[in-house]
Amino acid sequence: METTVLQLAKDLIARPSVTPDDAGCQQMIIERLEPLGFEWQVMAEGGVNNLWIRRGQARPLVVFAGHTDVVPTGPLERWNTDPFQPTETDGYLFGRGASDMKSSIAAFVVGIEEFVRAHPDHPGSIALLITSDEEGPAIHGTVKVCEHLKSTGETPDFCVVGEPTSVNHLGDTIKNGRRGSLSGKLTVKGKQGHIAYPHMAINPIHRATPAINDLIAELWDHGNDYFPATSFQISNIHAGTGAGNVIPGDIVIDFNFRFCTESTPQSLKDRVEAILQRHELTYELDWNLSGLPFLTPRGELSDALSNAIKAATGKTPELSTTGGTSDGRFIAQICPQVIEFGPTNATIHQVNENIEIAQLEPLKDVYRLTLQNLLLKT
Amino acid sequence: METTVLQLAKDLIARPSVTPDDAGCQQMIIERLEPLGFEWQVMAEGGVNNLWIRRGQARPLVVFAGHTDVVPTGPLERWNTDPFQPTETDGYLFGRGASDMKSSIAAFVVGIEEFVRAHPDHPGSIALLITSDEEGPAIHGTVKVCEHLKSTGETPDFCVVGEPTSVNHLGDTIKNGRRGSLSGKLTVKGKQGHIAYPHMAINPIHRATPAINDLIAELWDHGNDYFPATSFQISNIHAGTGAGNVIPGDIVIDFNFRFCTESTPQSLKDRVEAILQRHELTYELDWNLSGLPFLTPRGELSDALSNAIKAATGKTPELSTTGGTSDGRFIAQICPQVIEFGPTNATIHQVNENIEIAQLEPLKDVYRLTLQNLLLKT
Ligand SMILES: [Zn+2]
Ligand SMILES: [Zn+2]
Repeated sequence: METTVLQLAKDLIARPSVTPDDAGCQQMIIERLEPLGFEWQVMAEGGVNNLWIRRGQARPLVVFAGHTDVVPTGPLERWNTDPFQPTETDGYLFGRGASDMKSSIAAFVVGIEEFVRAHPDHPGSIALLITSDEEGPAIHGTVKVCEHLKSTGETPDFCVVGEPTSVNHLGDTIKNGRRGSLSGKLTVKGKQGHIAYPHMAINPIHRATPAINDLIAELWDHGNDYFPATSFQISNIHAGTGAGNVIPGDIVIDFNFRFCTESTPQSLKDRVEAILQRHELTYELDWNLSGLPFLTPRGELSDALSNAIKAATGKTPELSTTGGTSDGRFIAQICPQVIEFGPTNATIHQVNENIEIAQLEPLKDVYRLTLQNLLLKT
Repeated sequence: METTVLQLAKDLIARPSVTPDDAGCQQMIIERLEPLGFEWQVMAEGGVNNLWIRRGQARPLVVFAGHTDVVPTGPLERWNTDPFQPTETDGYLFGRGASDMKSSIAAFVVGIEEFVRAHPDHPGSIALLITSDEEGPAIHGTVKVCEHLKSTGETPDFCVVGEPTSVNHLGDTIKNGRRGSLSGKLTVKGKQGHIAYPHMAINPIHRATPAINDLIAELWDHGNDYFPATSFQISNIHAGTGAGNVIPGDIVIDFNFRFCTESTPQSLKDRVEAILQRHELTYELDWNLSGLPFLTPRGELSDALSNAIKAATGKTPELSTTGGTSDGRFIAQICPQVIEFGPTNATIHQVNENIEIAQLEPLKDVYRLTLQNLLLKT
């Protein structure tokens, strides 16, 4: 017998909502919650659909945030099932978005339904902030809704983001912050020439390598109680035309910092440039700050969520700030407490993405009990 | 009024003999020299034409060696003239092959003609060894003719290769040797992963960089009286899928040694592998030895050529072994004295390749006087 969470998750997975296409998922949410007294608005921009749907006007305002879009399927021949045909096998539900994050969306909706039916006159307000532009450029998505909410003063007091944060078991990990992400594209200039006449050329690979070596060896900070140390990684390095007898004219290096609250974008930029200048390189460097770090220290929201997790799963979650960026970084600009929690993430963005069906009911209960802990506290 | 060298150079340039296509150039040489008593054979293999054309059976055998093929034109829109339509402008002859090396071929032919007409009963023998596969893989070219000559015992005593060795003025530089060329393709293995989880990946760029740094800093030898120090250059370095959030699985590095007679291919291979192993890299390394070094110390040929240059140009040439490899490396296997001499090389392999027309007559005289010095010495 299918539970309501499972049925809704399957209905959502059946919609091929590859970024930025919502593919009607948000309409399904509206149809579920409107009868319970939720008021909604859809903000469509640049092919992206954003849904803001709220019940009540009082504070505190508790928001569940997430996304209906999914990453592309990848090679279809490597899927055992149709990625947009949700399939139950041996206790697992397979399909693109099964764990990132259509099951969380379904659990949000059903958890809210149960809470509202049990407590129709609850204090405070409940809202959902859903975008279809989380996996893509994230330009027209949550960031735009946050700007709008800030302008109307409708800022959340607590926000739970449904990203799949659990690692081995549902409930083992919540994310109470995320590192920032700062990228750079470095072009070191040389002078092209024939490999037999190196004195008439300037080999940019040879010029850049000692500086790259120093960048890799640098200790950027030590992290802190909530964050691991800032990490520097090179993702791409390219020089050369393919010809074996040509010294190329330049080398292009893409690197990325995942940085904690012990470093700032400016401090990292300054230190990188100091290293490049110490090596007397001729270079161009384009920076791209794709996310500031955010941090929600232990407090009311982490307690409410941890207690809900303990009650629904028996686990005491670990607070973590590792991993990629999420839309939490935008919400943290308008909301003092933002925490992410969702199912296990072992198969996200991969072929044969799936979720253990046994996680669905407890996940829904976590969200429901979090609402209860935040709104009905005595 | 056109001299014979200029006319012949133009006729050769007009033939679009891009490697390996001879485009009829060798037939022109045959038609010029056959009436003077030269006997010839064409060895065609793999699309390549090789010409061996000889007058006389006695020793010493003096050979002029060269190639009729040219490198591709490169972007036509950057040429001021049609590269295969020889064009005289302001004292320069423009066209692909003008300096590398159709003018040398023309000067060989006319110089030999003049010498033979003046000395029809000269002692010794004169031959031309011409290939159409010098600028390409050089597999079916000079190396094959040398194998053939070795098998028949028809090995040269002296060989002048017509490569453009002059730097600023005709006659300032001859090449009495060439460095060897040893290439390697190094693949350093890592483990692909997401840039936000570097501890779950092994970044091959980060692993390889300290080793590359050591390879670049290494002093391989000090050179000797005839050779500069061995040079190590990286021509290509590539890692990364283009995605900014992926740590790539491996990095590929192409490097090349131009090595002198103070190092051997084996000594260089051993030292590179020792550095890679010191850094405990997981790697694959494919070696390609494209040429052993050769050296013709000062002696009979360098004297004959230097004196001819002094007489024809007023210059005393410097002996040099710098620059790329040439077919001289193959001929040196069957000939005790090999020296290269030709016009200035500033525009070889470039768009708008040209030769100063005033170099043509003295170049022809150098070849003619070299023959005279070697065969008519008293
Ligand atoms: Zn997600
Ligand atoms: Zn050449």
